[in-house]
Formats: sequence, C-alpha cells, structure tokens
Amino acid sequence: MKSLEERIRKDGVVKAGNVLKVDSFLNHQMDVELFNEMGKEFKRLFADCPINKILTIEASGIGIACIVAQHFHVPVVFAKKTQSINIDGEVYSTKIESFTHKRVYDVIVSKKYISPEDHVLIIDDFLANGCAVRGLIEMIQSAGATVEGVGIAIEKGQQSGGRMLREDGIRVESLAIIDSMDDTTGEIIFREQ
Amino acid sequence: MKSLEERIRKDGVVKAGNVLKVDSFLNHQMDVELFNEMGKEFKRLFADCPINKILTIEASGIGIACIVAQHFHVPVVFAKKTQSINIDGEVYSTKIESFTHKRVYDVIVSKKYISPEDHVLIIDDFLANGCAVRGLIEMIQSAGATVEGVGIAIEKGQQSGGRMLREDGIRVESLAIIDSMDDTTGEIIFREQ
Repeated sequence: MKSLEERIRKDGVVKAGNVLKVDSFLNHQMDVELFNEMGKEFKRLFADCPINKILTIEASGIGIACIVAQHFHVPVVFAKKTQSINIDGEVYSTKIESFTHKRVYDVIVSKKYISPEDHVLIIDDFLANGCAVRGLIEMIQSAGATVEGVGIAIEKGQQSGGRMLREDGIRVESLAIIDSMDDTTGEIIFREQ
Repeated sequence: MKSLEERIRKDGVVKAGNVLKVDSFLNHQMDVELFNEMGKEFKRLFADCPINKILTIEASGIGIACIVAQHFHVPVVFAKKTQSINIDGEVYSTKIESFTHKRVYDVIVSKKYISPEDHVLIIDDFLANGCAVRGLIEMIQSAGATVEGVGIAIEKGQQSGGRMLREDGIRVESLAIIDSMDDTTGEIIFREQ
C-alpha cells in the first residue's frame, strides 16, 4: 500500500538492532484516517473470504483491528496478555515471545468468543518472527475455527515470520514489507508487491 | 445512551464484588457498530470543545477511542502500562491502581505526543475509582495541555471516581451510569440522565 510505505518513509525512524519506530502514527499515537485506508485495502484483499470475526492481540493491534472491522462488519476479539480476574470460565491460552519486548507472555482468549463456525481474520501491526501470529493461529485451531488469513500493517521481510507462515499455507497479506533498512542512513527498502 | 443501557441489561453479567462483566461486547469481544454509536454520542456531547487529540489507556480503552476519534477527525494516543524499549526519549509517567486487576501499573506517554497546545478528550471503557482518569489528567497537565473532558462508556456510580472528578471541575460524560446492581438477581439500575 503506497500511502503506508510513504508514511513509513516520512515518519518512521530506523534504529539499531533492526528496530523501526512508527510510534508517531501506528502504535502509540494512532492515525485513524490511515487505519481507515488500511481497512479498505484489507477488505479488498480478503473480499473472497467469509470472514465473520477479527482476532488481534493487545495492545497495539487493537486500534487497527477495530477500524478494519468496520469494513467487514464483524466483531473484534483481542487476546489478552495476562490472566484477568474479569475473565472467568475456560480460556484458550498460549505463550508468545515478543520481539520488541524481549519477553514471553501468557496470552488468553475466552472460549466463548471463538467457536468452530468462526472464520477468523488475524490483524496485527507488525510481523517479525511471527510468534504472535503463530500463537493466535494455535488458539483459533484449538477452537476448531478456520483461519481465513492474516492481515499485517508492516512486515519485516528480513525476519522469517512471514515466509514461514506462507510456506505453511497461511494466507498473509502485509500492506508494507520491508526488505532492508539501514540505521546509519535511515534508508528503508520495501519489497515490490 | 439508551442503546448502551439496553445492551448492558441484555449481555452484561453482574458478579459478586461489584463486578460487571461486559466482555461479550465491550472489552474482550468488541462490537464496533456499538462503538460507532458511542462515537456519535460523544461527538454530540463534546461538540462545543476544540478537541484535537484523544488520550486513552491500554488495552480496553483503545478500540473505543479509535472508533470515537473518527467522529472528531483527530489522532488517538494510548498510555502504555509498562516501559517499552521501543519508546525512547522522555516520557510523562504516573502510577495507576487498577480496580479490576488489583495492582499498580506504571503508565507512560511519550512527551512527543502531548504538547501545550493540545486540547485533549480522555476516553475509557470504565470509570470506577477514577484512578486511571486521574493518572491521564496528571500527564496531560504535566504537558501543559488542556483537559477538555472525559468520555466514559460505563460509570460505576456507586464508586466515587466520577463524583470526585466532577467536584474538581472536570467535565465527565458517561454514556451509562450504574447506580446499583445486584449479583443475586442480576438487576442493574441506571441513573436517569
């Protein structure tokens, strides 16, 4: 998506250690008009899929997922990173290692909100090593539901998460894929799509 | 807001310990069409305010805030509950005690995203003891920015948070205010607004 690539070039900051900071518009301050464009594009890309639910993971996936959901007219469920006393009953759970935060989270979704008849689109802001998406897929599959695909704002193409998911037959649509970035010059090279 | 009160009566579950579970439509599974109605109502209530930014706190405030922001055509900033290695530079920080989770969080907002010229609307899903809203107000005031008001989906009127904020001159608009609820009968009584 050209407008997202342009925004990343304009406002993204490349840091050492393969870190791309996009907190001015994506995951701390959030540009909901941009999210709306992303929602239109995901709807176009997944127009052929019978999606009835969107699944994301707290926190930075939630805003994008909610705006995207308006284009599909479906509810959003977000996986929670710690056990909450406000969720009772049984939950699907998994462990996810965060590339950004260098730690392992326990992640849960109430069993009430994913059912065998669900056709789920996973939405997240970043795809790097793919651990978060793998965890969400595992929970969807535990529920006997169908993974229709994965919609990502920014994929770090230098890391293996996206490639390995596609090799496993998962449909992954990333609106911007970074092939390389240079923290000394700030240059970002996007994959042609 | 009548449609929200009706939804709470229909799908909310009253639990012992003054707990109202609305995770089927508000803070785990999220009904974005309902959020859209809430956005329209907040825009009507705060139509006279020169709001240029919405501030919320992760995680369950983010979805509502993003949908609400579409009605104001402004960006959303969400306060983060732990220090992230992806936020550098200086931050505003405060400590917030969660009624739901019975613990104290360190909460931060990058100084880049609240400035003295900002007129901020705070949005959150619940208002109980008011600690989260107080923490957000403190950070906005530290930035020299203006708190235009507070928009809440569900206020627990039996707890003192809302009353004390209003006594301090903060404009608080809650779409549903619960005056009492009974976990044996499930009955919920809303304040007339």
